[in-house]
Amino acid sequence: MIKDSLNLQGVFPPLATPFREDGGIAYDLLESNLVRWGSEPLSGYVVGGSNGEFTSLTNVERVSLVRFVSDHVKGARIVIAGSGMPSTQGTIEMGVEMAGAGASALLVITPSYFKSKMDHHALVGYFAAVAEASPLPVLLYNVPANTGIDMPAETILAAARHPRIVGIKDSSGRVDKIGTVVKNAPEGFVVLAGSGGYFLGALAMGAVGTVAALANIAGAALSEILEAFQRGDIGKAQETQLRLIDVNTAVTARYGVPGLKAAMDMMGYYGGPVRPPLMDLETEPREEIRRLLVEAGLS
Amino acid sequence: MIKDSLNLQGVFPPLATPFREDGGIAYDLLESNLVRWGSEPLSGYVVGGSNGEFTSLTNVERVSLVRFVSDHVKGARIVIAGSGMPSTQGTIEMGVEMAGAGASALLVITPSYFKSKMDHHALVGYFAAVAEASPLPVLLYNVPANTGIDMPAETILAAARHPRIVGIKDSSGRVDKIGTVVKNAPEGFVVLAGSGGYFLGALAMGAVGTVAALANIAGAALSEILEAFQRGDIGKAQETQLRLIDVNTAVTARYGVPGLKAAMDMMGYYGGPVRPPLMDLETEPREEIRRLLVEAGLS
Amino acid sequence: MIKDSLNLQGVFPPLATPFREDGGIAYDLLESNLVRWGSEPLSGYVVGGSNGEFTSLTNVERVSLVRFVSDHVKGARIVIAGSGMPSTQGTIEMGVEMAGAGASALLVITPSYFKSKMDHHALVGYFAAVAEASPLPVLLYNVPANTGIDMPAETILAAARHPRIVGIKDSSGRVDKIGTVVKNAPEGFVVLAGSGGYFLGALAMGAVGTVAALANIAGAALSEILEAFQRGDIGKAQETQLRLIDVNTAVTARYGVPGLKAAMDMMGYYGGPVRPPLMDLETEPREEIRRLLVEAGLS
Amino acid sequence: MIKDSLNLQGVFPPLATPFREDGGIAYDLLESNLVRWGSEPLSGYVVGGSNGEFTSLTNVERVSLVRFVSDHVKGARIVIAGSGMPSTQGTIEMGVEMAGAGASALLVITPSYFKSKMDHHALVGYFAAVAEASPLPVLLYNVPANTGIDMPAETILAAARHPRIVGIKDSSGRVDKIGTVVKNAPEGFVVLAGSGGYFLGALAMGAVGTVAALANIAGAALSEILEAFQRGDIGKAQETQLRLIDVNTAVTARYGVPGLKAAMDMMGYYGGPVRPPLMDLETEPREEIRRLLVEAGLS
Repeated sequence: MIKDSLNLQGVFPPLATPFREDGGIAYDLLESNLVRWGSEPLSGYVVGGSNGEFTSLTNVERVSLVRFVSDHVKGARIVIAGSGMPSTQGTIEMGVEMAGAGASALLVITPSYFKSKMDHHALVGYFAAVAEASPLPVLLYNVPANTGIDMPAETILAAARHPRIVGIKDSSGRVDKIGTVVKNAPEGFVVLAGSGGYFLGALAMGAVGTVAALANIAGAALSEILEAFQRGDIGKAQETQLRLIDVNTAVTARYGVPGLKAAMDMMGYYGGPVRPPLMDLETEPREEIRRLLVEAGLS
Repeated sequence: MIKDSLNLQGVFPPLATPFREDGGIAYDLLESNLVRWGSEPLSGYVVGGSNGEFTSLTNVERVSLVRFVSDHVKGARIVIAGSGMPSTQGTIEMGVEMAGAGASALLVITPSYFKSKMDHHALVGYFAAVAEASPLPVLLYNVPANTGIDMPAETILAAARHPRIVGIKDSSGRVDKIGTVVKNAPEGFVVLAGSGGYFLGALAMGAVGTVAALANIAGAALSEILEAFQRGDIGKAQETQLRLIDVNTAVTARYGVPGLKAAMDMMGYYGGPVRPPLMDLETEPREEIRRLLVEAGLS
Repeated sequence: MIKDSLNLQGVFPPLATPFREDGGIAYDLLESNLVRWGSEPLSGYVVGGSNGEFTSLTNVERVSLVRFVSDHVKGARIVIAGSGMPSTQGTIEMGVEMAGAGASALLVITPSYFKSKMDHHALVGYFAAVAEASPLPVLLYNVPANTGIDMPAETILAAARHPRIVGIKDSSGRVDKIGTVVKNAPEGFVVLAGSGGYFLGALAMGAVGTVAALANIAGAALSEILEAFQRGDIGKAQETQLRLIDVNTAVTARYGVPGLKAAMDMMGYYGGPVRPPLMDLETEPREEIRRLLVEAGLS
Repeated sequence: MIKDSLNLQGVFPPLATPFREDGGIAYDLLESNLVRWGSEPLSGYVVGGSNGEFTSLTNVERVSLVRFVSDHVKGARIVIAGSGMPSTQGTIEMGVEMAGAGASALLVITPSYFKSKMDHHALVGYFAAVAEASPLPVLLYNVPANTGIDMPAETILAAARHPRIVGIKDSSGRVDKIGTVVKNAPEGFVVLAGSGGYFLGALAMGAVGTVAALANIAGAALSEILEAFQRGDIGKAQETQLRLIDVNTAVTARYGVPGLKAAMDMMGYYGGPVRPPLMDLETEPREEIRRLLVEAGLS
């Protein structure tokens, strides 16, 4: 059964895409980042997610990045490829290409341009069509801060009925919804928390892992939360979670990808510039991030 | 120190206000409800909260209800009185009256009519003025679904600096915010989850209790979550949390107070009618609630 | 027929409530304001609206203000009394008292605390119950910036079927909705624009007047827009509308009631302090307002 | 001066893109639609706008459509090409290609994926960079219902300072904002109303034209509004505006592009199917649209 074909437990960084100063993709620096991530306790990678600035990549670049990362890991780690496009047909075709490029699974964001028409019926129909045509297992991607659409539990559960839809990355931060989905979803359907800021809360409600921007720089600490939780050491899990919480906010809600890339530069990874319309961080927020990394025991 | 003067750990039902068919308050039926709640493992009561339909009560009724419940418990349980009014002066005066009526603490909702003006500065100033004049410890009350205002962590933390502000009931459902507050608040400031739907997730992030509509009918089950969590039995805690989650949604987000009162009627409490503009539940949702109570093992 | 019993055409200021420095109502200064408003080309007054800070008044004060203004105008001008309370029964009783105090009509805001339950059915039921029990004609009041509820055209039109519901003050700023209501409402139902910022746009779509904060200080200029529009001199109407538009923004969306009161003080009316949680304006915004009043040719 | 190089007064339909049943673009049917639009009193066309389902077109298709329409009109009408992409570089390149394909001006939507980072500074920087690199005059495109971003007047005004930014299509429906922009923008910067539902209200506030979905089927009636307004016949303008208002709602807010295409089919144009994830209309809404077309005197 497809829902069991992948073990999605654990910590998955949504890889930041490294750009050179001239805007091109710095594959050599991605390579060195990957070497370092390779020694972290991660279950796999998301390529072409929000933190990968996928909307600022060309279609060719999106597929290329999937191929590059897949070639690097050589099957040793799961590669989840963000394949969402605004149209059903576009998403289907992108998924086929990404499968060909070596992806293990697809992460499909809710289409959102025609917001008011993206009701339960339209979304369930969209995901069913995409899954039906997909050569790979599909994860739903709910990220209301970016899309303006927050899929309710009943829509997620209806989509989850398709055998090829194996889970969801939920970035709504509503752990009650995570609980509702965990309780009512078909066997094997999993929930990944979409941020490191409520990872422990999500685990408590039944999530099995996280796709967290913070995992680009703090994979070990996030894994510690999961392990402590699993062995019943809630005290340790909570201590680690709270230690990370302010720096997590800085590299997500407060400063976004520019904040994450600044933190990566400080942590010995290559972060580098963002592509406009995002703007690189000014000095003051950089110093705040540096302070928060120290405070979190990360640097 | 005031922040230690009350032990706010545990489960607090925000008491539904029982109305007779003619709309008057049914004190005799409130009495019998209280007798039954008295045998549940609850830490105290919230009187005049959202589930008490406080906006549909007169000021006199609000104080009367606090007096009635305080007289009933005779100090054996904490009575948290919802004292929020739209103006600073109104809230201060209501708090003084409720203190006189026997309340143990005040629960003060964010003022919300002049939404666009209720920025960080205005809210911190408001809560400081209210706390300064309050004869009792004060809990903040953040409930964006009703007020349209979601206090960010920095506003909560700034308000928490006042020695008489001892905690918050947060109903935003954002457990990352709970974690941020728990981590950064002064010693003794506590967070209570504002719903039973994410109680365990909130506990994991450092909350110490809950003010949950569901506690009107399921105090024992909610207490079970807390106890299992505290003894490190996450499996049991999660099982109970997920068992309750669908009925919790029904008596909160989906059907609100009319749903809660219908469930109370089914559970042997007196729920009775709501005051308009709320409307009593139709047959179909009632049957759904009955089914969900059974499914949750509550009835 | 009730819908014809009042001529609601024209400009109605929602009177700011003058407070003394100690917070009490300054009736003597209200009197002098009224004398001056008396010489402006206004059709009447709204008492106890948002700009009157009604949520910061006691129920007794709200009725008192209606009596004071009604006694002053002695029937020469229409007095529209804001009678909305959070509960149906509360609104009904307040309306009866305000009628006894001399009001000509009631302005009833959408109840909004239980937002998610205030659907079409609940709102239409609410307004029907209020109108049914009302001794006076009723105007609906839609102000999403304060209530978080934006009544759609179909709800307004359903409510408008009650013979005693004679119009709406719509502050949503959506003039397409105004057009939809004007086109489809029963004969005699009128729309008043809820702000002076789009008065001409609303007139073009079929509104007959305005309840505008700006009318507290610029009744003549707003009347000029109406008169120029009615005689087909769109050039003049537009010139006046655009001349007023920036100062209108300052005393509404940008600085709200504190901005309006500051402007009143500068224009020779008594504005005075606001009641907390609103906060009086700082020096810099005051200077901006002073500059905008000059630029608008008002001072 | 660039701001005077184009006369943007009048009615511009955002052309629906005709698809065959197999999903391909039906250029032959676009041709016959264009022949018929050619006899309507329109000032030009928007190609690749929201109603053109641009997010469901490939980049190649977007440019092709611009070329096809430009070749058809041979300079006799203005062709405004929707060139927005999620990244600055993408939008610049698309604009260059569309210029090469014959477009007269570019319509650039606000980037919206990284919503919380698209503040005043980021948006002004984005539009300045795009305009700086553009071979053609640029119109801003503000459509909060689709993007979740509503550019405030000050952002529009800051962007309008660039000499190559000549106007805005504003679909927010806030005519007070239109007035604020008209009053304060540099000479020559124009506002086009983004819907036919408030066209007259927008004209009254200083707009000079409209890009309205309804113009695909009712160009003559919309032009009538403009002409009557310009000659001071407000009665006639209002009568026409209100006559169109309900069918306008049906082909925009209520049923969107599927509604517009259904109406086109009924009016003798080729509407045809939409591309998923949009869904074609069911029978009942089709009948409602048919009824509203008749009621509006359009069919």
